[in-house]
Amino acid sequence: MEKVLAYVGSNRDRYLAEVKDFIAIPSVSSQSNHQPDMKRCAEWVAGQMRTIGMQNAQIFQTPGHPIVYSEWLGAPGAPTVLLYGHYDVQPVDPVNLWTSPPFEATIRDGNLYARGSADDKGQVFIHLKAIEAYAKNGHLLPVNIKMLIEGEEEVGSANLDAFVRAHKDLLKADLVLISDSSMFAKGVPSVCYGLRGLAYMEVEVEGPNSDLHSGSFGGSVHNPIQALTEMIASLHDKNGRITVKGFYDDVRPLTKAERTAFKKLPWSDAKYAKQLGVAQLYGEKGYSTLERLWARPTLECNGIWGGYTGEGAKTVLPAKASAKISMRLVPDQTSAKAAKMFEKHFKSIAPKTVKVKVKALHGGEPAITPIDSPGVKAAVTALRKGFGKKPLYQREGGSIPIVVQFKKILGIDTVLLGFGLPDENAHAPNEFINLDNFFGGIRTAVHFYNELPGEWSKRVRKGR
Amino acid sequence: MEKVLAYVGSNRDRYLAEVKDFIAIPSVSSQSNHQPDMKRCAEWVAGQMRTIGMQNAQIFQTPGHPIVYSEWLGAPGAPTVLLYGHYDVQPVDPVNLWTSPPFEATIRDGNLYARGSADDKGQVFIHLKAIEAYAKNGHLLPVNIKMLIEGEEEVGSANLDAFVRAHKDLLKADLVLISDSSMFAKGVPSVCYGLRGLAYMEVEVEGPNSDLHSGSFGGSVHNPIQALTEMIASLHDKNGRITVKGFYDDVRPLTKAERTAFKKLPWSDAKYAKQLGVAQLYGEKGYSTLERLWARPTLECNGIWGGYTGEGAKTVLPAKASAKISMRLVPDQTSAKAAKMFEKHFKSIAPKTVKVKVKALHGGEPAITPIDSPGVKAAVTALRKGFGKKPLYQREGGSIPIVVQFKKILGIDTVLLGFGLPDENAHAPNEFINLDNFFGGIRTAVHFYNELPGEWSKRVRKGR
Repeated sequence: MEKVLAYVGSNRDRYLAEVKDFIAIPSVSSQSNHQPDMKRCAEWVAGQMRTIGMQNAQIFQTPGHPIVYSEWLGAPGAPTVLLYGHYDVQPVDPVNLWTSPPFEATIRDGNLYARGSADDKGQVFIHLKAIEAYAKNGHLLPVNIKMLIEGEEEVGSANLDAFVRAHKDLLKADLVLISDSSMFAKGVPSVCYGLRGLAYMEVEVEGPNSDLHSGSFGGSVHNPIQALTEMIASLHDKNGRITVKGFYDDVRPLTKAERTAFKKLPWSDAKYAKQLGVAQLYGEKGYSTLERLWARPTLECNGIWGGYTGEGAKTVLPAKASAKISMRLVPDQTSAKAAKMFEKHFKSIAPKTVKVKVKALHGGEPAITPIDSPGVKAAVTALRKGFGKKPLYQREGGSIPIVVQFKKILGIDTVLLGFGLPDENAHAPNEFINLDNFFGGIRTAVHFYNELPGEWSKRVRKGR
Repeated sequence: MEKVLAYVGSNRDRYLAEVKDFIAIPSVSSQSNHQPDMKRCAEWVAGQMRTIGMQNAQIFQTPGHPIVYSEWLGAPGAPTVLLYGHYDVQPVDPVNLWTSPPFEATIRDGNLYARGSADDKGQVFIHLKAIEAYAKNGHLLPVNIKMLIEGEEEVGSANLDAFVRAHKDLLKADLVLISDSSMFAKGVPSVCYGLRGLAYMEVEVEGPNSDLHSGSFGGSVHNPIQALTEMIASLHDKNGRITVKGFYDDVRPLTKAERTAFKKLPWSDAKYAKQLGVAQLYGEKGYSTLERLWARPTLECNGIWGGYTGEGAKTVLPAKASAKISMRLVPDQTSAKAAKMFEKHFKSIAPKTVKVKVKALHGGEPAITPIDSPGVKAAVTALRKGFGKKPLYQREGGSIPIVVQFKKILGIDTVLLGFGLPDENAHAPNEFINLDNFFGGIRTAVHFYNELPGEWSKRVRKGR
């Protein structure tokens, strides 16, 4: 192990050069003009897999973007890890708010800035290099590994479900490992045991059949922007609770133990508010900020548009207005039910003066992972060794819908070993990964693969 | 007169060819990339003035777009008409909703479709051709004319006020004539005696200092889009009345005579709603549609934007959201006071969770013109002769702020002789001018210049 870890320590410059190449491919899955980049990025990943000694590396075509697979099965009797990640990234708009170009990885203040640096290319790369470190030092990996790196995570993984169902044998494993989340804070390594789900909607409010002159027509019809704002405004009550009928019915209440554990975490509302630049936090009354972020559902407007949005003044009364609205879900809500509830509610609150269209764009389920499973235990030890600190337990506000699908289709739990940071700007301008986390992540991954067989055999011995 | 009118009748094809050239210049004043087109368009207008025998044609530079002036002062003793119009046009977005290209004038179903066909290039052109018809037939114009054609009407005429103040002597006249409004309906010629004013605002709501991941941060801060929708939604009460404090204080109530006159106009709410494609009209309770359109103030969202508005889904909690909001004003409201009231009110309703910026983009005052003035009386006779029908009186929901400025600076009233139609799409895709109105307009303008001296002398004899 010393040799493997020493190798990781002495290859930092090469790691940075290689991850820059990976990042430089603008693999924005939601924008059709990036289709050739998606193909190129999948090929880059497959090439890396071959270079580091993974076998059977292949690119599976899908109706959307390709899936990259490879395996190393040279540890008979040891558990098999299904490593999941994604090579696609979020759009970069508004690009003018980036300090350095989004696809040119740039180091500032100990961070590597670029789209995908944390979510998720940088974290996929961490595992590639951990596996490579074993191979380059004449060590066999202590576990079997199957890698599944997809290109549609940022657009709802529309084709992954069918792929997993169609390749159950190929993907047969003992647990899933995902590095696509964040530590609790810089210098505070943590294991994440819960995720929120997502139901993402698009709505359109139609008024008159044509844009109208706001002077000649203002006062006669319901302005669709006004109607939309009235409808959206009504989706929260004065206590910050979501008014969609039945929305909270399936929400699993926080346990006393969880509320106590969250209170022990190092946290300051004042510091958090200052960091985000807001004078006052906002959310559902009766819950702490961490509770609201991790264990309570939310409803957010992700985008709104209508009428004239260009330079200067245009006195238009627009024909329609639209919004993207998403709900973060917690156990035991489901995205399909939430989407249905939303659609029914949104249509029910539409005034007779307008027409309303509601479309579900995509969804993912919330999840909770047992904290005494061997995978989580191996992760705790690996983090302690990789970062030299005892990690804490946390939940996460974001969604990794595939966690639920792996459980459903393959029957296995997922370990979430996140090396990002909460302020990493994952879906915003100036995304970054902290370099200590990047290199610490490679060390932790090396340890994880080393620790897992021991924890696994204990589990087997216990007959679980 | 017969010769002049016969000439108008026999030059229709040439008129259409020439107005197409005028329209083909994309003189969008609000978009800086069209600056060269603005210059070219001003030169086109000046060239036309010279061609039709106007004297002293010149282009005045301003800090914004140029103003075109010319005069014909060969009718000593007769009144002097200051003809005002504008050669600038509205933006053409969304351009994909146009049936034919916005700057290629195209005839369909007896209408001429193009940006500026009605507002206001087509109506400026009507007067150029009426004056030309006198000149080309060896007739001296019965009135003196000063033409003032500006290039910033669609962006609030920011530099016109200073120009008029600086050229009071040059512009000295007995009345203003403007053709920049609509008839009551197709085949129903009308004189407009009232206009609404305008106060156009832009607001920005700022939340966190950066776009955030809606999963990792949703539930902790007030989403600026949500806050903006809540604020905008609160600007109308359940009776459709504007909630801005003090907003109705200066509104002049409708007289009984006006309400009776409006009820006599041919009007059907059902037909109007059907034409606009809405199931139900909307507006301030207690007023008829025409009353709401012409004599009651309104508040409209002209545009809204924030967050991700592109293809697909982006789970962003945006840093800010913005809107363009304008108020239509009626006598005796003023734009400055309305803008101030709005700013104060909007800031007062901002929650502590966000920061709010309010900017006044431009404004114009409402106006009412005496219906027994010689100019309006000449207009009534001219319309009757030009269209073969007795015209009706109406008000207009739109704004021509300069009307108030001419009264204030030059001390003269304005006659509004509109040849557009209410459904002409003036600020929307597929703007058009009806060809009967276009040619009838030229005839009416010829008559107006012929009728005015007689009405004027009656007024002088009455000692008014």
